[in-house]
Amino acid sequence: MPGSHCTKGIQKNINSSTSAASSFPATELQPLMANADLPSEHDNSQENRMEKDPVQPEPTNPQRARACFLKGISYFSGDMKVFGKWMEKQFFLLQLLDWVLRGAAQVMFVNNPLSGLIIFAGLILQNYWWALNGFVGTLFATISALILQQNRGAIAAGLYGYNGILVGLLMAVFSNKGDWYWWLLLPNIFMSMMCPIVSSALASINSRWDLPVFTLPFNILVCLHMVATGHYNHNFPQVLIQPRSELPNITWAEIDVAKLFTSVPVGIGQVYGCDKPWTGGIFIISLFISSPITCAHAVLGSAVGMVSGLALAAPFGDIYFGLWGYNCVLACIAIGGMFYALTWQVHLLAITCAFFCAYLSAAIANIMSTFGLPACTWPFCLSALTFLLLTTGTNKIFKLPLAKVTYPEKNLGFFWKLKKQEKMERAKKAEKEGNEQQKAIEENIILNEKEQLRLEHERMEKGMAESEASEDENDETHVEDHWVEQQGTGDEEIGHNDLTEVTLGDHD
Amino acid sequence: MPGSHCTKGIQKNINSSTSAASSFPATELQPLMANADLPSEHDNSQENRMEKDPVQPEPTNPQRARACFLKGISYFSGDMKVFGKWMEKQFFLLQLLDWVLRGAAQVMFVNNPLSGLIIFAGLILQNYWWALNGFVGTLFATISALILQQNRGAIAAGLYGYNGILVGLLMAVFSNKGDWYWWLLLPNIFMSMMCPIVSSALASINSRWDLPVFTLPFNILVCLHMVATGHYNHNFPQVLIQPRSELPNITWAEIDVAKLFTSVPVGIGQVYGCDKPWTGGIFIISLFISSPITCAHAVLGSAVGMVSGLALAAPFGDIYFGLWGYNCVLACIAIGGMFYALTWQVHLLAITCAFFCAYLSAAIANIMSTFGLPACTWPFCLSALTFLLLTTGTNKIFKLPLAKVTYPEKNLGFFWKLKKQEKMERAKKAEKEGNEQQKAIEENIILNEKEQLRLEHERMEKGMAESEASEDENDETHVEDHWVEQQGTGDEEIGHNDLTEVTLGDHD
Amino acid sequence: MPGSHCTKGIQKNINSSTSAASSFPATELQPLMANADLPSEHDNSQENRMEKDPVQPEPTNPQRARACFLKGISYFSGDMKVFGKWMEKQFFLLQLLDWVLRGAAQVMFVNNPLSGLIIFAGLILQNYWWALNGFVGTLFATISALILQQNRGAIAAGLYGYNGILVGLLMAVFSNKGDWYWWLLLPNIFMSMMCPIVSSALASINSRWDLPVFTLPFNILVCLHMVATGHYNHNFPQVLIQPRSELPNITWAEIDVAKLFTSVPVGIGQVYGCDKPWTGGIFIISLFISSPITCAHAVLGSAVGMVSGLALAAPFGDIYFGLWGYNCVLACIAIGGMFYALTWQVHLLAITCAFFCAYLSAAIANIMSTFGLPACTWPFCLSALTFLLLTTGTNKIFKLPLAKVTYPEKNLGFFWKLKKQEKMERAKKAEKEGNEQQKAIEENIILNEKEQLRLEHERMEKGMAESEASEDENDETHVEDHWVEQQGTGDEEIGHNDLTEVTLGDHD
Repeated sequence: MPGSHCTKGIQKNINSSTSAASSFPATELQPLMANADLPSEHDNSQENRMEKDPVQPEPTNPQRARACFLKGISYFSGDMKVFGKWMEKQFFLLQLLDWVLRGAAQVMFVNNPLSGLIIFAGLILQNYWWALNGFVGTLFATISALILQQNRGAIAAGLYGYNGILVGLLMAVFSNKGDWYWWLLLPNIFMSMMCPIVSSALASINSRWDLPVFTLPFNILVCLHMVATGHYNHNFPQVLIQPRSELPNITWAEIDVAKLFTSVPVGIGQVYGCDKPWTGGIFIISLFISSPITCAHAVLGSAVGMVSGLALAAPFGDIYFGLWGYNCVLACIAIGGMFYALTWQVHLLAITCAFFCAYLSAAIANIMSTFGLPACTWPFCLSALTFLLLTTGTNKIFKLPLAKVTYPEKNLGFFWKLKKQEKMERAKKAEKEGNEQQKAIEENIILNEKEQLRLEHERMEKGMAESEASEDENDETHVEDHWVEQQGTGDEEIGHNDLTEVTLGDHD
Repeated sequence: MPGSHCTKGIQKNINSSTSAASSFPATELQPLMANADLPSEHDNSQENRMEKDPVQPEPTNPQRARACFLKGISYFSGDMKVFGKWMEKQFFLLQLLDWVLRGAAQVMFVNNPLSGLIIFAGLILQNYWWALNGFVGTLFATISALILQQNRGAIAAGLYGYNGILVGLLMAVFSNKGDWYWWLLLPNIFMSMMCPIVSSALASINSRWDLPVFTLPFNILVCLHMVATGHYNHNFPQVLIQPRSELPNITWAEIDVAKLFTSVPVGIGQVYGCDKPWTGGIFIISLFISSPITCAHAVLGSAVGMVSGLALAAPFGDIYFGLWGYNCVLACIAIGGMFYALTWQVHLLAITCAFFCAYLSAAIANIMSTFGLPACTWPFCLSALTFLLLTTGTNKIFKLPLAKVTYPEKNLGFFWKLKKQEKMERAKKAEKEGNEQQKAIEENIILNEKEQLRLEHERMEKGMAESEASEDENDETHVEDHWVEQQGTGDEEIGHNDLTEVTLGDHD
Repeated sequence: MPGSHCTKGIQKNINSSTSAASSFPATELQPLMANADLPSEHDNSQENRMEKDPVQPEPTNPQRARACFLKGISYFSGDMKVFGKWMEKQFFLLQLLDWVLRGAAQVMFVNNPLSGLIIFAGLILQNYWWALNGFVGTLFATISALILQQNRGAIAAGLYGYNGILVGLLMAVFSNKGDWYWWLLLPNIFMSMMCPIVSSALASINSRWDLPVFTLPFNILVCLHMVATGHYNHNFPQVLIQPRSELPNITWAEIDVAKLFTSVPVGIGQVYGCDKPWTGGIFIISLFISSPITCAHAVLGSAVGMVSGLALAAPFGDIYFGLWGYNCVLACIAIGGMFYALTWQVHLLAITCAFFCAYLSAAIANIMSTFGLPACTWPFCLSALTFLLLTTGTNKIFKLPLAKVTYPEKNLGFFWKLKKQEKMERAKKAEKEGNEQQKAIEENIILNEKEQLRLEHERMEKGMAESEASEDENDETHVEDHWVEQQGTGDEEIGHNDLTEVTLGDHD
C-alpha cells in the first residue's frame, strides 16, 4: 500500500540519521589501575620486573603471583591515580601535601607523590635550606592557584606547583647571602604566588598551539628576580655571573673520565639545581618508580648533553658540574614519549632535540651571562617547544593532544588504542558501505515487485472502474502518473534528510 | 480530522522555531550623556561632588539643581561623547586638534580632549621644547593613521596619537644634543609616522587574544631610535645610560621623607617623562576630570612603585625621580577598572599587578641599561598583558571585551547591566520553561479530546460503511492502525524540525 | 491539480538549493607558460625586452617573431614552471640539484634554478670555500626536509633550501679559523639539517597570520651557533664583534663617491655575505632573469640603505661594505610586489619599509654586537613581518594569500584577475537579482492564473457533485479550504528547506 511506503521512507530516514551519529569513537582510556582497593606502597623489588601488561584471563599459580605483583606495582607507579582518588576524600591539608609532592615531581613531568617524596629526600640530602625554600615555593604556588580559582584537576596534578619549587630552589641557590638568610622567603613567597598568574597567562597563548607552558613561568620569574636585584644589591644580592672574556684552558690530557661519568646523574640533579651525584641518583630512582621510559630518556639526555659539551669545547668544570646536562634531560624526556607517542622515529627525534638543546644551552648561557643571569631552563623550553611545533607528513610522529598527556607508558597505550580504533573504523566503514550497497539492491528489487503489484492492481481497478464511470478516467490516470514520477524524485533525495514524502488518493 | 492535525503540527513547528530566535539580547549601552544640547566647559567646582547617577524622575528644586550640575559635569568628564559628536560637524583642522588632544590623554587611557589640553599645559610647564616635540609627534602619528586609512573611530578616540606623543617627548628627553636641536624633528616625524604601522601590526597579533597594544609601539620605536644611534653618534646622540657596576650607597638615615612623598606625583609625571612635581599634579587633575577611579589608581600605583623601590633597595635618587612609579601607575590604571570591571577582587589584582610591575621595572631597567637604553614603558606593557591574559574560574574578575572598553565608570555600568541582563534572562528562561510545560499539558488535553472525537466519528462512519461495503474492511482498519502508530512517532519527533507529516486516504 | 502543485514546490526547492551552490568562483590561475614543449636556456638578449603580455590572436610576421621570442624567454624567466614539471620525471639526483639551485635563489624570493646557478657562480667568484659551505648547507637542509617528510611542493620550490645556504655561507664567513677548516662542515651539516625543523615550527606559528617564515630559521640557527661557541672557543671560534664604545671618525670631506655607488651592488651581494661588487652585479643579473620587478626593488632597497646610513652618521666603512644595504634589499623586494600586489601605494610602502629596515639594521647591529653577534637578516625579517601585519582600509594595498605568492609579475596578474572577477561577479549578482525579481513576478502571475483555473474547476466539480451526492458535501469543502490555507504556509516556508508537503484525498 502507498501509505506503508511512506512510513517506510520516514523510518529509513530516521535510521540513517541515527546510525550516522552513533559511530562516535569512545576515546576514553582504560585505567591502568582500576578496581583497586588499597594501595600498598612498600615494595622494594619493583625496579627489576616493571611491566604493564594487562592481567591474563586464566592465570596459573605463578601467573597469579605475577598479576598480584603487577597490581601492587600499579598502586605507586605511573600517576598513582588510585591514590589520588583516595586522597580526594581526605583532610584538606593532606590533599595539599599530595599536591605539593606531585608538584615537586612534575618538574620532571612525573605526576606521582611518591616520586615527589623521594625528590624532597634528595633535596634534603643536598641542602636543608634549599629544600625548605623549594617546599615553601611549591606550597605557596599551589595556594595561589587555589585563591585564583584555577582548574582543580590541574592543581591536584601538581601542575601549578612545579614552577613554584623551581622558583624557591633556584632563588636560594643563586642568592649571594648564603644559607638561612630568612628575608629571602619574602621574595620567594611573592614570586611563587606569581607563578599561577604567569602560568595562566602563558597557557592562554600556548594553548592556541596546544602546547604546554613547561617551566617558562619559572624561567621568567627567577630571571626577573635575579636581574631586578642583581649582584650589586643590599637586600637580595645574587651570585656574580660574568660573560667569558678569554680562551678557557682545556687540555685533553687532564680529563677525568670518572667525573665525566658522574656528570650524568649530576646533570639530572641540576634540574633542581643540585650538584651532588647522590642526589641525582635519588632523582633517577624517583623517575624509575613512575615511568621507566622517562627514566631512560633522562639518562640518555644527560649523556647527550655531556657529549655535546665535549664537542663544543666547553670547560671541563662546567661539564662535570652538570650544566650541560639538565636542559637536555628535560628536553629528551619531553620529546621522548611524554608529548609524542614513543616510536623509533620519536626516539631519534628526542635525541636530536637533546643535541639541539645542548647547543642552545651554550648559546643562552652566554647571552644570559651578559646580564649576570644563569641559563635556567630556557634552552629546554625553547628547544622542546620548537620540536613540538614541528609538523611532518609521517604518522609515526604522533603528537598527543595536550589533554591526553599522562606518562609515556600510558601515552603509548592511548596511541596504540587510537591506531586500533582507526583500523577498526576503517574496516567497519568498508563493511557498512558493502551492506548499504546490498541493502540498496534489495530495496530496489522489493520496490520493483511492489510497483508491479501496484500496476496490476491498478489495471484490475481500472477494469472495474471502466464499467462504473467513464468520464473521470483521464483525470485519474494523470494523478497516478504523477505519483510515480514523484516517488522517483523522492528516492533520489533520500540522503538529504530534509524532504518530504507524498501521499496519494486511494479509490475503489 | 486528520488533515487539521497535520497543519497543526506544522504551525507548532514554525512557532517554536521563531520564538527560539527572537530572544537575542540587546547588549547596547545606554549613553551616559544623551539628549545634551550645548557643552558648558567652565565649571570649577566639579572636583568635589563628582557623581554619575542617572537623573531622578520627579525632582524637587535642590534635586533639579543637582541634576543640572551633574549634566553640566557630564559634558566634560568621561569621554566627552557629546563634544566628540559635535566636533564631527566642525572644520577638519579643529577635528584634528580634538584628536591630538585626545591622543595626548590616551597615554593614561583617558579619552578626553580637556584632559589632553591640561596635560599639554603640564608639559609646557615642564619644558617648551619637549611639549613641542610631543605635539609634533601626536600630530604626525594621527596624520599617518589618516593616510593609511586606519579605523576613523579609533583615530577620533586618539588611539593612534598616544604613541606619537610619547615618541616625540621621549626622543626629546633622551637626546644628548640639548633643547632646540631642530634636526631632531626629522627622526621625530619619521618615527611618529611609523607609529600607526607598528600599532596596526601589533594589533593584528594582540587582537587574537582580544588584547590592546598599549604603548608597545612607542617602546619599540623609541628603543629603535635610541639604540640605532646610541651615545656615540654625530647626528642624534643619546644620553649615556650604563649598567650598575658597584653597590649603590644607601644609608637609611639619609632618607628624605618629603621627597619620598613628592615622588608620587613625580611618578605620574614620569609617564610623560616629566620630573617636576607640579607637572605631575596637573596630570592628576586631568585624570580626575575624566575619571576619578582612574585618578585613584594612578596615585595608588605610584605609591606602590615607591614602596617597591624601597623594598628592593633601589638608590633613593631613582625613587625620588619617579622612575619606580610611572610603570606601576599605568599598570594599576589598566587593570584597576579599565580593562577589567572594577570589583574588590580586581582592585586587589591591580595592586598585585603594580607590585609585579615594579619588580619588572627594576629587571627591565637593568637589562636595557646593557644596551644604553631606558626601561621606557616595557614593564607596564608586559605586566599588564600578563594580567590581562590571566584566566580564572571566578566571575568577579570580568575582562571587558576590547570593543566595549571606555572608562572605568562606564565599564562598571556595562558590567552591571550585563549582570542584570543575565539575571533577567535566566528568570525569563525559567518562566518560559514553565509556560512551555503548561502549554504542553494543555495541548495534550486538547489532543486527547480530539482523538476521542475522531474515534467516535470513525466508529460512526464505520457503522455506516458496514452496511454499504463489507469486503474492503480489513484493508481499511490496517491503514487506520498505521496512522495512529505514525502519529505517535510524529509527536516524538517534533523537536527535529525536519520531519514529515503524512496523510491518508479518506473514503466513504 | 493539487498533486502537481506539490511537486512543483519540491522541484523549486531543489532548484534553488542547487543554483545557490553552483556559483563558486574558480580562482585558479592561468599558467603563464602553458603548452610549452622544450626549454631554450641560451638567450643572451633577454634583458632588454622582457615582457609578459599574452600572445596576440592573429600575429603578423614581426609579431610572430616577437611571440616566439617571448615564449623562449618564458622558459627560463619567472619560476621556470615548465622546467620544474619536466624535472619531475628525471633522475632523483638531478631533481635534488634543481631543488638546491632553486633553494639558493629563494634567498631573494626567486624560484628559478637558472638564477640559482648564476648565484652559485657569483659565490665561487667570491670564495670557493664559502661556496662549498653554501652548497653543503642547501643540500643537507633539503635532504633533512625529505627525511622529515615535509611538503614535497615546498621542497621542490627550494623553500627548505634557502635557510640552509645562508647557514652554510655565514658560518663559513664568520668562522675565525679561516678557509678550508674542514671540521666546520660538521656543525654546518648539523645546523643545516635543523633548518627544516625550525622552519616547520616557525611556520606553525606564522601561518596563523598567513605570514612566511622568511630567513628567521637562518637567523636563529647562525646566531645560535655563533653565540654558543663565541670568539673564545677552541673548536669553532667566531670573528670578534664588539659594541662601539667611542665616537667614530666621520669627516665628510673624505667621502668616496665611487665607493658609495659600488655599495649598491655590494649591498645586494651582502645578502649572501659577499663583499665583492662583481658578485653583487652577478646577483643583480640573476634577479633580472627571473623577475625585473624584484631586480628593481633590490637595487632601490640597497640605495635606500646607503642613504639611511649617511643620514644616521654611520662610519663610511660600514656603508661601503654594504652592511646598510642587504636588509633593505630583502625588505624592499618582499614588500614591493612579492607579498603585496604591486601598486603605487605598495611601491611607496616598500620604500618606507626599506627606510624602517635601515633604522632597524643599525639598532639590531648595535644590540647584537653586545653578544658578539652580527645583525644577520633579523632587521629584514622583523620589518617585513611588521609591514605584512599592517591592515589598512584601502584595497590598493592587497596582501596576497601566502599560497598564491609566486613572483611579482605573476602576483600582479593574479591581483588583476581577482579584481576583474570581483567586478564580473558584482555585475552578475546585479543581473541575477534583476532576473530573480522578474521570475518572481512571472511566477506570481502563473500562480494566480492556476489558482483561478483551479477555482473554476472546483466550481465545476462542485456543480457535478451536487447532483450526485449531497450528504458528504460539507466535509469535502472543508478539506479543500484547508488545502488552500496550507499551500499558503508552504509557499512562505520554501526557504527553510525542512518543510513538508501535504496531500489529500481525492474522491469521486
